[in-house]
Parts: sequence; C-alpha cells; structure tokens
Amino acid sequence: MELQKVKSWIDGFDEVLGGGIPKGSVVIVTGLPGTMKSSLAWAFLLNSAREAGAKALYVSLEQTRPSLENQMAAMGFDMNVARPSIHILDVGSIQKELGRSATKPWMEFLRRTIETKKKIDGIDLVVVDSLEALDVLARFEDRRTDLFHFFEWLRGLGATTFVLTEAPPEPSIPILDPSTQSRDDAGYLADGIVHLKLHPISDVEMQRRLRVVKMRGANHKTGFYALMFESGRFSVTPAMSA
Amino acid sequence: MELQKVKSWIDGFDEVLGGGIPKGSVVIVTGLPGTMKSSLAWAFLLNSAREAGAKALYVSLEQTRPSLENQMAAMGFDMNVARPSIHILDVGSIQKELGRSATKPWMEFLRRTIETKKKIDGIDLVVVDSLEALDVLARFEDRRTDLFHFFEWLRGLGATTFVLTEAPPEPSIPILDPSTQSRDDAGYLADGIVHLKLHPISDVEMQRRLRVVKMRGANHKTGFYALMFESGRFSVTPAMSA
Amino acid sequence: MELQKVKSWIDGFDEVLGGGIPKGSVVIVTGLPGTMKSSLAWAFLLNSAREAGAKALYVSLEQTRPSLENQMAAMGFDMNVARPSIHILDVGSIQKELGRSATKPWMEFLRRTIETKKKIDGIDLVVVDSLEALDVLARFEDRRTDLFHFFEWLRGLGATTFVLTEAPPEPSIPILDPSTQSRDDAGYLADGIVHLKLHPISDVEMQRRLRVVKMRGANHKTGFYALMFESGRFSVTPAMSA
Amino acid sequence: MELQKVKSWIDGFDEVLGGGIPKGSVVIVTGLPGTMKSSLAWAFLLNSAREAGAKALYVSLEQTRPSLENQMAAMGFDMNVARPSIHILDVGSIQKELGRSATKPWMEFLRRTIETKKKIDGIDLVVVDSLEALDVLARFEDRRTDLFHFFEWLRGLGATTFVLTEAPPEPSIPILDPSTQSRDDAGYLADGIVHLKLHPISDVEMQRRLRVVKMRGANHKTGFYALMFESGRFSVTPAMSA
Amino acid sequence: MELQKVKSWIDGFDEVLGGGIPKGSVVIVTGLPGTMKSSLAWAFLLNSAREAGAKALYVSLEQTRPSLENQMAAMGFDMNVARPSIHILDVGSIQKELGRSATKPWMEFLRRTIETKKKIDGIDLVVVDSLEALDVLARFEDRRTDLFHFFEWLRGLGATTFVLTEAPPEPSIPILDPSTQSRDDAGYLADGIVHLKLHPISDVEMQRRLRVVKMRGANHKTGFYALMFESGRFSVTPAMSA
Amino acid sequence: MELQKVKSWIDGFDEVLGGGIPKGSVVIVTGLPGTMKSSLAWAFLLNSAREAGAKALYVSLEQTRPSLENQMAAMGFDMNVARPSIHILDVGSIQKELGRSATKPWMEFLRRTIETKKKIDGIDLVVVDSLEALDVLARFEDRRTDLFHFFEWLRGLGATTFVLTEAPPEPSIPILDPSTQSRDDAGYLADGIVHLKLHPISDVEMQRRLRVVKMRGANHKTGFYALMFESGRFSVTPAMSA
Repeated sequence: MELQKVKSWIDGFDEVLGGGIPKGSVVIVTGLPGTMKSSLAWAFLLNSAREAGAKALYVSLEQTRPSLENQMAAMGFDMNVARPSIHILDVGSIQKELGRSATKPWMEFLRRTIETKKKIDGIDLVVVDSLEALDVLARFEDRRTDLFHFFEWLRGLGATTFVLTEAPPEPSIPILDPSTQSRDDAGYLADGIVHLKLHPISDVEMQRRLRVVKMRGANHKTGFYALMFESGRFSVTPAMSA
Repeated sequence: MELQKVKSWIDGFDEVLGGGIPKGSVVIVTGLPGTMKSSLAWAFLLNSAREAGAKALYVSLEQTRPSLENQMAAMGFDMNVARPSIHILDVGSIQKELGRSATKPWMEFLRRTIETKKKIDGIDLVVVDSLEALDVLARFEDRRTDLFHFFEWLRGLGATTFVLTEAPPEPSIPILDPSTQSRDDAGYLADGIVHLKLHPISDVEMQRRLRVVKMRGANHKTGFYALMFESGRFSVTPAMSA
Repeated sequence: MELQKVKSWIDGFDEVLGGGIPKGSVVIVTGLPGTMKSSLAWAFLLNSAREAGAKALYVSLEQTRPSLENQMAAMGFDMNVARPSIHILDVGSIQKELGRSATKPWMEFLRRTIETKKKIDGIDLVVVDSLEALDVLARFEDRRTDLFHFFEWLRGLGATTFVLTEAPPEPSIPILDPSTQSRDDAGYLADGIVHLKLHPISDVEMQRRLRVVKMRGANHKTGFYALMFESGRFSVTPAMSA
Repeated sequence: MELQKVKSWIDGFDEVLGGGIPKGSVVIVTGLPGTMKSSLAWAFLLNSAREAGAKALYVSLEQTRPSLENQMAAMGFDMNVARPSIHILDVGSIQKELGRSATKPWMEFLRRTIETKKKIDGIDLVVVDSLEALDVLARFEDRRTDLFHFFEWLRGLGATTFVLTEAPPEPSIPILDPSTQSRDDAGYLADGIVHLKLHPISDVEMQRRLRVVKMRGANHKTGFYALMFESGRFSVTPAMSA
Repeated sequence: MELQKVKSWIDGFDEVLGGGIPKGSVVIVTGLPGTMKSSLAWAFLLNSAREAGAKALYVSLEQTRPSLENQMAAMGFDMNVARPSIHILDVGSIQKELGRSATKPWMEFLRRTIETKKKIDGIDLVVVDSLEALDVLARFEDRRTDLFHFFEWLRGLGATTFVLTEAPPEPSIPILDPSTQSRDDAGYLADGIVHLKLHPISDVEMQRRLRVVKMRGANHKTGFYALMFESGRFSVTPAMSA
Repeated sequence: MELQKVKSWIDGFDEVLGGGIPKGSVVIVTGLPGTMKSSLAWAFLLNSAREAGAKALYVSLEQTRPSLENQMAAMGFDMNVARPSIHILDVGSIQKELGRSATKPWMEFLRRTIETKKKIDGIDLVVVDSLEALDVLARFEDRRTDLFHFFEWLRGLGATTFVLTEAPPEPSIPILDPSTQSRDDAGYLADGIVHLKLHPISDVEMQRRLRVVKMRGANHKTGFYALMFESGRFSVTPAMSA
C-alpha cells in the first residue's frame, strides 16, 4: 500500500523524501537564520501550483504581504504563477481583523481563516512562517498543549502543512525537565522534519545542506544533501563529504 | 535458572538482547525523531502475533488509528496479521471516552482500559507511543512519583511494555538538581532501555544503529549494532566501526 | 525584479551582500566586544552620506555624543562629512528630554524622535547602538512582543536600520524554553544579520572576520570574509582558511 | 595502624580497593543505567555471606523482592547461599507497612527497620537501591540536610553501606549554585565512591570499567579497571588503554 | 585627531594598547583567580605616579589596606612611590564610615568619596577591586541599571577607571535571556576590556597571557601577548604560538 | 620586603608556593572527591606541629573525630605528634553544644569556639572540612555575604586557614547571573587557591596533580605538579607532560 504523496518538483528532493510528502502531514522545516526556510517552502508551493494546480495559504507572521512578495520576486520566483495560487495572510491583516473583534482569540481566528479559505478556494498546502512569531502573537497559556491540539487540528484538515522554525531538530544538550522542553514539541508532534543548515566546508566557506530527519510513512533517505539555489530554482544533490 | 523471555523474531536482535526480553519488563525505547521507534515496536508486536499468537495493545497518543495504520501499511508491514492481533487505542478515542465522564483522571482511564482489554482478549504486549505525548495529556501533578507508580503498575500487569521516548538514555550533561531530572525517571525506573540512533558515518551519511543499554535479568550485548530496514523487515547486524 | 539596494561603498562588502542591503531592511550587526560593530555602522553611514547624500540618525545609548565623535575621529573617520549628515541622539539628551515629561514611555519617545527627525531632515539610515543598552533603558514589560512591534515599526519607516548587539547570531546551545529565547528575537525578526568576529588564526593571533548570515531578498555570499581596517577605511576580502 | 576491612572476594577488586572497604563506610556505587550496579552490590553481599558469614539487608526500592530474586538467579548467582543471608526489604512491603501507620515518616520507618533487623539477625552490610527511588519515595523536605543526617546515621550504625545511584561521580559542568548541587551531596558525604561505566572502545564496542574514585582511610588504586562478568562471577583486571 | 592617552609605562603594553588608554575610559580588567589583575592595575597606577605625577584611588573591597600594601610590597613594588600617590580606600573604612550614617546607600557613599578625593587631591586613575565584591557589598536592587549608571558616572568623572572582575570577557555559552546576562553588563558598558589568562602550554605548564579585547577610540592589537613579571616589573612581549 | 610565610615542610611544595603561604591567608583547597584534600591539609598541620610547634584546629564537619583519626592513622600519619597539636572539633560536638543553647546561630558558635581555642592554646592553623558541609549546617540566609564576612573574620584572626571544597577553581562554563555564582565566592574571596586533581594519563591511568592557582603576595609557580603519597608522606615533583 502506498500513501498519497505531495511532490516538491524540486530536482532531487522528491527522491530524498522517498517519493514526496505523505498528504496531510505536518512537516517542520527547521534551520538557523539565513538557511532559506521561507524560500524553500515558497518553491514547494509554487511548483505544486504550476505542476498540479495546488491551492496554497502562506501565513506570513514576520513580514507583510508586499514585503514577502518583493523578497520572493527578488529571488527570481515567477510571481505570475504565484499570485493566483498562493494566498498570503499576513500579520497586519490578521491584526486588523482581530482589532474589530477583540474577543476572538488569536489561534481561533487563525483556524477559522484557514477553514474559510478551504471552503471557498480549497486548500492543499499551508505554510506557517514562523513558529517563533506564532509564539509571540498567540500568547499561548499552555504552549505544549495548545500546539499539540493545533497540530492535531492541522492533521485533520487534510492539507499538507509546513511549519517554519529556527528551533533545532535535535537538542544537542538534553534538558531533562519537561517544563523546559516545550519548543521540542514541534519536533515530536510533527509527521516530518526537514532540516536546513549551512555546513562549514572550511573555516571560511559554508555549503547549504538539507536532511530529512523524519517522515512518517515514507522510506526517506537519512543523510545530508547539498541544497543549491540559482535564479528561483532549488536543486538537491548528493553532498561530498568534506 | 532462566527467566521467561519474549522474543522479537527480528533477525539478530534476540541474540543482542541475550535471548529476548524478560517477560513482564518495562522497556524504554529511546531515540531522536526519525530513528524508527514506532516501526521497531510495531515489528516486535507483529512478529509476536504471527509467531506466538501474542495479543497486543498499541496506545497511540501522537496519531489517530487510521494515520498509524496507513503509516505502517506504507512501510510494508502486513496489515492482515496486524489487524486482529494489535488493538490500537488512539488519543481521539480516549478523549471521546473521557469527555463522557470528565471526572475520571487520564491515567486512571488508561489503566482501566488496559485492564479491561486484558480481561477480554488477554494482553501480552503494550506499547505507549509516546512518553512525551503522555506528559502533555496526563497533566501529571507530580511527574516523578506518578511515573514511578505507573511503571510499578505496568510491571505488575504481567505484560511486556514498550515506552517510546525521545529523551536520551544518558544525560550528556548531568543536571544535579533532582527537581530537573524528572525525564530521567523513565530511565532508572525501566527494566530495560533500547537506544536507537542515526550515527554519522561521515558529515553527509548516517547509519541506523541500535544499542541495548540495560536489560535486567539478561546477559545482553553492550555495543552498538547496525539496524537495517527493508520492505517491512528489520534486521540487526554487527556495525563496522567508522 | 530587483529590490532597491542601499550600498555600503566599503571595498568588497557590497559584493558579499549581493549588491547592497534591500532598502527598508532591519539588519542586526552582531559581534562580541571589540569586533568594531560601531565603527562598521559608522562607516556605512559616512559613505552613504558622501556618495549618495544620505541622511542618518545614530542612536547612541552607550556613549555621549562627544565621546562617540571623539572615538570616530580618533579612528580616522572624516568628521567634516559626518557632522552635517549624521545626527547623533545620545542617551543623555534622551534622558534630559524624558525628565521634562516623565509620563512618556521610553520607546514611545524614541519612535517620536525618529519620526520628527524624518519629517524635518528626512532619514535614510538609522543605527541603534546597542540593543543591550536599549534593554536596560526601555525596561520592556514584555520584551519579545515589544521588540517584535518595534521591528515592525522600523520596517514600516522606510529607513534602513542597523541594530548593534553582542548576542550571537546562532545559539550554540539551544535553549528550548521559549521564555528564555527572548534575545534571539532580534535574530528571527530581522531581515538581515551581519556577524563580526575575531577568528583565532593560532593561539595568539586573531583575524577580523565578517559573515552575512541572512539577508532577505538578496542572493548574498554565505562564507566568512576578512575585515580590514586602516585609517578610517574598511575593506572586505576573501579570507584564507587557516 | 590498619582499619578493619570488608573484603569483596571478587577477583582483583580487593587489591584495587587497597585491601577492602574500611568497615562502617558509606560507599556510593555510581553508574549509568546498564552498568551492573545492582549485580556488583549483590555479588559483594553474596561473597561476604559465603566467605565470612556476613548478614546483609538489601533495600530494593525499584523492584519487588521476587523480581530482584529472579533477576539475580537469571544472572547465575547462587540463590541457596543468598536466601538465608541476604534479607530483601522491597518497596511493596515498606508501603504495606507504612499504610497501616500513615503517620510514621518514610525515612524514620527505614531507619527503624534497619535497626530492628540489626537487633534480631545482626547486620554487616546494607544496600540502598537506589538513591533516585529513595528521592521519589521519601519526599525529602530538605534533601541536602536529610541525606547529610541519613549518611551520618548509617555511618554510626557500624554496618558497611552501599548506596546505588546514577548520578555521576564528578560534575562535568560545575553548577555553582549550592541550591542546585543537592545530588552531589551523595558524593562528598560518602566515605567511598566506586564508579562503573561502559567505556567506548570504538564507535561500536563498549567495555565495562570500574574506578575507585574515593575511599577514606584506604590507599586505593586511582585508575580505571576492566570489569568482567560471566555466570554469576565478576572479576576486575587491568584495562588496556584503547 | 588623536584622543589624549594614559600610558602604562609597562614594557610593550602601550604598543599593544595602540598608544595607551584613551583618557576617561572605563576599562574592565578580567581574568580568573591568580591572573594578577590587582598587580597589573597596581603597576599601572605606580608607573603613572612615577612618570607622570598621576594621583590615584584604589578601592580595595576584598582586602584591608595593610593587607594590600603588604601584598604589593612582597611582590617587589616600590612602596615609597606608591604611598604618597595611591590612596587606598578599603572595605573596612567604608563600613566604619557607613556605620555612622546607615541611611546613606553604599553606592552613593562610594561616589561621594571619589568626588571628595577628586576635589582635594585631584584624581587621575581609579581602581575598583573587585566587581564581585562590589556586588556583595552594594546589594544592587537592579544590578544592570545601577551598573549602567555607575559606569556612565565614572565616564563623566574624567578619571580613567579600571574595574577588576573574574567574569569572562566573552560568554562561551550564550545565555539568551537578558535577565541572566547581568554580569556581562560590565563588558558591553565598558570602553575597554583587557583580558588576563593563564594559557596551558602543555598539560603541566601555564603561560601568563594578555589580550586587549576592546578599546574604544584606539587602534589596538587584537592577539594574545605573553605577560611577564619579575621583581615588581611587568613586561608584555609577543607570545609564541604553542 | 618579605611577608612572613607558613611552610608546608612537604618535599617540593614550598618551592611551588614561592616559599610557603603568607601568614594569615585564607587558602581554598579544591578538588573532586578522592583527590586527598583532607590528607594534604592534615599533612600540612602535622608537619607544622613537628617542625615549628604550631597549634592547629581541624573543624571536621563530614566525619566524627574518631573516624577522622582512624582514617589518618590508616594513611600512615604519626598520631603521637598529631594528638597534642591538632585539636579536632567535629560536627557531633558542635551539635551537642548547640543543642544546649538553640538560640546561638551556627556560624556564631563556630567563631566563638575558634576564638576560645585561640585564647587558651593559641592557634596557628585552621582547617574547615568542608565548605559543602558548612553550607548544609550553617543554613546561610545570604550565603555570599555571610561567607564574605566569615572570610574577612578569618583573615583578621591571624591564623592561616585552609577551606576544603569540591567546587572547581574556575568555572568551565561561565554562569553570568551573580545570583548563581555564590559557590565561586570562595574563590575570589580567598587569598590563595590550591587545586588538586586526578589527571588522566591515558584512558585507564590517573596521576595525582597539584596546582597553586593563586597566592596573594607570593611569587608562586603557575603550572601543574605531580603529587605523590606514600606511608604518610606527600611529595611534590615536576609532572611530565603526557
């Protein structure tokens, strides 16, 4: 039996994923600042729109819609394909909306917006950029439990979701107290984890790398791959050991 | 004298375990995300069902039953054997049940469900997937003590139990204050600890490895072994030192 | 499409930046004490004044205006160009102003001053030196949220902003609890991060180095470069691996 | 002058101890899970019973008496020697006893039981397995002070005591605040510390090792020794440096 | 333009400082116990007294005046030069003074004493030995803010100040929460940082080393230098890489 | 000028100390469990008694007087010299004394006892064994301040004092918050620090080593030396680099 897979149409990436991402998965995309998390997620959405007519929602909590569009255009992505297919919900519009009805809590509003968008246009892919901004804005009372239920809800939605975060995929120093492990929730609750990093080739050069840390229901590759980017196109190739 | 052992029927694993797992043990299966903890536990259950007619309960706290079944089917496990022998109790059903009787505490409900299942079908093997999700859902007041008693209770049940967790088998930085060592409880309270990891062979390749850290009453091997997986079958072989 | 870029006119730096800094970005300049953060920001402002007639505001929270001017003059920067173009707002003047009207909160005062300066002279570049001093002076009630909104506001201002900080660009030990990640906000909220460091060439020699960690909307270089300084002039050159 | 020494009758161990353990010492046996702390302590008791007619009390706080006996039998220890000489006090019996008189505090009960056992049978050796379980059960109000006085009391008892713990013999990262050093109390309060570990010989093989870290009043060896175990017999031999 | 520089008259040190310390700077002298912070500061004061007739105040918060004088005499410093030029204010005298007027807060008293000394004798150089003792004695309510303002005040005094501390010049593990970064205030608030250390040349030998980490307004050297001391005379020479 | 020095009469140690310990110093002797802190301090006292007729007080807070005497006799020290010259004040006697007058605080009692001993017999040397036990027993309200004043008081006493502690001489991870640096107080407040360690020569052998980290008013050696012990005699020799 084979789960239905969502492809990236990024050269080499689908092979690493073991054929694509099982439909309906919640996938963490993690990496330090500057590792191109937003651009990779954008490329996934854009390719799915072009190749498979997918409808997407990009929840942009760190930038306004014009700023995100300018950034993606400057990176060489084709905005003529993006505009009709990728709906951008930015933090400004959310706050404007919430201002009119201050009683609706933030997460509740986000869920309703996603549900509405789903009813009207359909929704195949969702990006939440970023988990850190969501932390600030949603003001969770009980972060672990709230995220647990939000991820359950996303999973039930049927859409494939990318949650972008700077939190590392694996704690390098285990902090044993559960009360301090909340950020890690994202990791163990997710169906998949894709890790982006800049690997030092020497003490002056860095190479972009990608690893599929986890992907439930997929026989994915386990190692690190080189991630290349040129004029709006990513590609994933075997990395030479340095 | 020889304790009664539960075999894994996984190639090479029973030799590493020193013949199998002493019946009635509580065994921690620990590993970072993506180390195939769920799949290895599933394989153990499935093999025991096929080879020894064992009855199992899989307490799935991170995924729904259909999601877990789809994942395991996609990995190539034979669902015709699994369905009649492995009972899946998922977080959704538990919450539905608890909703009808909000006064019953979570852990109490879990114990009763396991006891009922034991009376009706018998129960030889239990999986709790995962300790992290249990933490969120059970909302322990005193985690160390509650887990201590839950493990005592599991031990008294007679069934062999696997508790899956991302917590490391050994703290790499000792945190000396007991109030911050709660996660470690799982380790010292357990009868056995099996550690799964992805070992970096170079800066780009990773090898799946397994180590039996502890197994009370068994003369187990102490080193790391390679863990292979292909089309629904695990095997454990000596690892070459890299 | 190409975003409008603000150039540094520092030898070699604009190539590393991928042509300059996208106009309106909030850029973190990070480095330990003694890495010449203030001097590099000053050079950027001075060059922009000389080459493009840019108007700048330097918010000096660690030193008085005379002290900063003496320091920059001693480093060999041309104060005849700096004085008419770089307006220095120092902590003393702010406190004098706030003393007359103790009800205005600190951040509010800073925003108004920047807005007033913008209306009167125009404002193309802003430096906040430093985030650590801002922390002490502004006495944030909710630092993460307040910085989030301050950065949003800076972004909306149209001016390109440099925020100087000693906080590292990437946590070397991930602290997973969000309540302890506040300093990192600066990182994920910023559009760009420039990292300055002293790299040990041996156990006695240090080389000044610069890395563009992140720059939204720019195809910047990812490695480390040598940063040279002589008589008021910086230059950026490829670093030899040591 | 020579202190009276308690011998282990384990091949090679008494030489490493500098002749044995000074009678009446409180000795910490420390090691991560799976390092055979319980088995080594058991061997010490069993040998002392066989060779010197010693009477022992094993306070088993992690396992029931049958479970501990099964484990030790499965390891190949001679239970015919053990049963009349090693009295096992398990957590179940303690809790049953305490249930009848809920007013007696836990530690008080433990002390009385040990004293009673001493009066009736005599008592030469005591094992507390483990300090971690004692932490959970005794619910210390002031752990440092309570342990300080418990160790003083054990010392006054005349019996030689082994306290098993997973806490490391030496903090690898010093935590300077005394309020976080409580676990370390065990170390500095003890008269002796024996450290068991699994030493990685390569990235796949592990060797059991033993080090006498501290032994008041004994001119013990200071290095690491190999610890071998076969069919119920330990031996200690020089370890080859790997 | 050249800032007025205060020279150390220590062989080789002024070249490393880029000509001396800009007059009026607050300079942190940091190093672990035993790195000769007090002696180096004392040598600076003594040389300035002899060569330039400078007047100095040494605030000795860890030792009494006789103890400090005995120590410096034993190190071979010429007390005939020191006595008329270096005024020692020790913790005993401060406490005696404060005892008579318990209402004056500690920091306020320290400021007034320094101001009075300035009016009567003039004051060119101040040493605060040490920041750690100041922490204990001053009982700051808000340490970050109080130190911020104390350093501002010192800067306004016109005297060049040395603040001795064991706190490291750069955190090796970044602690991101600003509430835990208070000790670091000293670093970012200071105009200069001089780091003293004992560098292990092998696993048995240590070499004294000095690095000017930061010096505002000076084109100082950036590497490590050997620090030699013999019969009351320091010298600074290039360190051979080990 | 030369400070009056207290000699150790231990082969090689006085040369490393730069002639001995300046009379009246408070010296921290620091080392992990098993590094022979107590024995080295005892040897210092015993040699001073034999060679210079010194009177000493050994405050034994971890062991009773008989236990300490037995331990030292077993190590080969000459108890005929020790008994009349080294007065042992043990925790039992202190508690008996305090029991009769529960209002006297602990530290106050310790000071009075030391003062009384000084008046009656004279007192040249004091050992406090250990700082950790003192922490537990004295129940400091404000540890930093209380220790600060206790050390000041010891310094004023005229006797040379050794304070034994397991706290490391230098934090390997700087903890920046002053509220967590209390243990370190011992370090910066002391006039001298002597560090004992077991240095791994290979992964199986350990060598005893000693380093004088700090000694105010003495031109001490800075490196590590081998510490040998045989039949009640220590010696200090150059260590070969391993």
